[in-house]
Amino acid sequence: MDDVMLKLKPARRERLADVLYGQILEQIASGQMAEGAKLPSEARICRDFQVSRPVVREALMRLQADGLVVSRQGIGTFVKSRPSDKLTDFAASAEIASYLRAFEPRLALETECAGLAAMRRTKAQLNQIGDALAALEGALARGETGWEEDFSFHLAVAAAAGNELFSRLLEELGDILRGSMRMALSLTRQGSEDRRRRVLEEHRKIFTAISGQNRELARLYMRYHLTESRARITGSHGDL
Amino acid sequence: MDDVMLKLKPARRERLADVLYGQILEQIASGQMAEGAKLPSEARICRDFQVSRPVVREALMRLQADGLVVSRQGIGTFVKSRPSDKLTDFAASAEIASYLRAFEPRLALETECAGLAAMRRTKAQLNQIGDALAALEGALARGETGWEEDFSFHLAVAAAAGNELFSRLLEELGDILRGSMRMALSLTRQGSEDRRRRVLEEHRKIFTAISGQNRELARLYMRYHLTESRARITGSHGDL
Amino acid sequence: MDDVMLKLKPARRERLADVLYGQILEQIASGQMAEGAKLPSEARICRDFQVSRPVVREALMRLQADGLVVSRQGIGTFVKSRPSDKLTDFAASAEIASYLRAFEPRLALETECAGLAAMRRTKAQLNQIGDALAALEGALARGETGWEEDFSFHLAVAAAAGNELFSRLLEELGDILRGSMRMALSLTRQGSEDRRRRVLEEHRKIFTAISGQNRELARLYMRYHLTESRARITGSHGDL
Amino acid sequence: MDDVMLKLKPARRERLADVLYGQILEQIASGQMAEGAKLPSEARICRDFQVSRPVVREALMRLQADGLVVSRQGIGTFVKSRPSDKLTDFAASAEIASYLRAFEPRLALETECAGLAAMRRTKAQLNQIGDALAALEGALARGETGWEEDFSFHLAVAAAAGNELFSRLLEELGDILRGSMRMALSLTRQGSEDRRRRVLEEHRKIFTAISGQNRELARLYMRYHLTESRARITGSHGDL
Repeated sequence: MDDVMLKLKPARRERLADVLYGQILEQIASGQMAEGAKLPSEARICRDFQVSRPVVREALMRLQADGLVVSRQGIGTFVKSRPSDKLTDFAASAEIASYLRAFEPRLALETECAGLAAMRRTKAQLNQIGDALAALEGALARGETGWEEDFSFHLAVAAAAGNELFSRLLEELGDILRGSMRMALSLTRQGSEDRRRRVLEEHRKIFTAISGQNRELARLYMRYHLTESRARITGSHGDL
Repeated sequence: MDDVMLKLKPARRERLADVLYGQILEQIASGQMAEGAKLPSEARICRDFQVSRPVVREALMRLQADGLVVSRQGIGTFVKSRPSDKLTDFAASAEIASYLRAFEPRLALETECAGLAAMRRTKAQLNQIGDALAALEGALARGETGWEEDFSFHLAVAAAAGNELFSRLLEELGDILRGSMRMALSLTRQGSEDRRRRVLEEHRKIFTAISGQNRELARLYMRYHLTESRARITGSHGDL
Repeated sequence: MDDVMLKLKPARRERLADVLYGQILEQIASGQMAEGAKLPSEARICRDFQVSRPVVREALMRLQADGLVVSRQGIGTFVKSRPSDKLTDFAASAEIASYLRAFEPRLALETECAGLAAMRRTKAQLNQIGDALAALEGALARGETGWEEDFSFHLAVAAAAGNELFSRLLEELGDILRGSMRMALSLTRQGSEDRRRRVLEEHRKIFTAISGQNRELARLYMRYHLTESRARITGSHGDL
Repeated sequence: MDDVMLKLKPARRERLADVLYGQILEQIASGQMAEGAKLPSEARICRDFQVSRPVVREALMRLQADGLVVSRQGIGTFVKSRPSDKLTDFAASAEIASYLRAFEPRLALETECAGLAAMRRTKAQLNQIGDALAALEGALARGETGWEEDFSFHLAVAAAAGNELFSRLLEELGDILRGSMRMALSLTRQGSEDRRRRVLEEHRKIFTAISGQNRELARLYMRYHLTESRARITGSHGDL
């Protein structure tokens, strides 16, 4: 338990809590801060990183929500689990924070899309979702990341919701989503066979629920998929 | 029960089902098609409006979902209730369709925002929501529509969700939201005192739930508010 | 701000936190503890009431959740709002706590019932819900409490869910529900005309949503109704 | 495609749609009705089974919801997938219908329990959930069904919700739950290693979410677990 290892560069333009989150994440992922290690105090991080207390608290709160650190009342904050050290091979650390944050609006929007798609999808729209799923299966089988196919799948579900505003909103998040999928599936490509199987199964269940016009099931499986996708990035599930 | 009253202009550029929805809505709102009147058959509407069957079905499905018409299996579709004839004073009929459609992503996004705001809002963010509420109360008391204050309220809740992507997505819908609020509150201004009281009370409950950090309550009251707002536009609740 | 007014009788058999909740509620409702008054410290309540710290915390947490007291970090707990002093005319104080607690499983079960009823209700089941609604309207108009009609309404919705297990579970809570409705509607009878109007309107909206086979709407309106019913008991909404 | 194979015994006392559901389920599970086989017409089933049309429709609707048959508009109803033929080794066919139906109130109640448990569980209650999980792991490892341990797990979650009415309601369903778990886990014991792994993982995720005090996650994982449990009984997921 040592709290001197955290090295921080003063922040400039970018969103401060993100950058701070990213720097701490990077040091945990790289192993510079080992599991069990104690983080510096909030006051110390404020000083070293030259930001206000709320910024530090926000960054720590998110790290805790992601299962990377744990706060013990009155004692301090400790590294809890270490995400893949390859995480930072595939994206800059501040980008990772924004990828993770995008899961919040995605959960709201895409869960709704899946439910509406189950009610309204036309035959043609269902086929597009099915085609994207088959393309994703093919890409993973060929050892590709399949991130473009993944993106197409999610766009096809949004299109099937029968309200073009959903597609428009998803496109507004397009850059973040593409980056996020590329990073997540790059990790999956290097992960276990079991991990790839899960990624496909989660997509397949969404497709089947939409195909079977089961709104509640489509909502549940989309919510589950997004939640698990996020956990695979932060490593909260081990290699799952 | 007469089905010859519906007059349709062939569509051009705009989204066809919206335009069709808007034209039928207009004729119901204006009283050209009275309550109980039978709409022409799907085939007839296809021919007159020069669109395909799916377009007609989509427009009719939405009119039914909005409580404006009712379909009786094997008999036909009938005008069920008449929204305010002032509705089309305040917006073009195709715009009204897009305003109504925006409630779907709003329900998904803003319900989530309200819940997150209850957990994360800072004191300053709460004050901004409170200020917007007070401004809305003032505007309604002065006999103004208050639509700008209404928009500020919803943006302030999104800002308090502690994830700037929600604000960005709401801004993406900004034009539609502004138009929608202007129209809805123009109707409210001409409506009963009771109607104004309800609009304020719905906003006040959202504020109180966020202030009291009650996530479930904030979600419920936002969902209720948006649902009732939509119903006030289509007139499904009488003058409420 | 005085903290010596709270008088506590040591507890015996009944569920301790409930009894403690009830005693504090009673003294707030009766005005013995005025708005703004400071409650004794947790340690003091433990000693006077002869219970352990967790029991005290649970009771205080519920009082806060009900909007009756407010805790200020490091300062203490204060009376926030006063429910109707007639509350304890209609039920023993420990019973009130159990009535309030029943809203948790009711929210889960009855929200689901309302949604399923919207999908599955037969014509006959819809008529039963409609009959119960009409009976409730009649009872309130005649100046009765209408609690039996209220109970019938909720049972009829459960029956329309098309799965008899829901009815069985609601009957298991039957005594609590009947007591709760009798107390709530006794308060309503003595309350404003506006309050009666709201009670009826909330039921009417549930009926309309089930009649219109709108699952999401039926779920929302049941959830809203139960939430408002609970708030009317604790007085969190003034006389609403 | 042959529709003469369905053999029906006229019903007596028990709930008719359940019995009918059970008889059809049995003949699908046993292979008497093969995949792709056409069921007799509704009119024919009414006559053979001596029940009214609504009873037949209800049974067919549930079989379709369970993914066992599929209706094609104007053509007829066909066997879609075959659950394990061992299903009826472990429970009488009418009981199976009631086990499946119990998932509806369970989804409502237990999802809420899991969410409340994440917020309110004491250390001791969390330990009880953890102990039940460990016991379930042990039982499955020893080749037992583990149904008693499974039941203990779900009761422990309900107890941790901090509202004894949830436990009471779950006990009210106790016989059905015990029977349902015994049947489901008997199938799992005979199933693949992968199937056992999934059952454990689903429980583990619920425990972890409650331990981490993550309400939304606890709700999601309980909902997912119950949905998958039901699908494992009807075989909608193959051997999963």
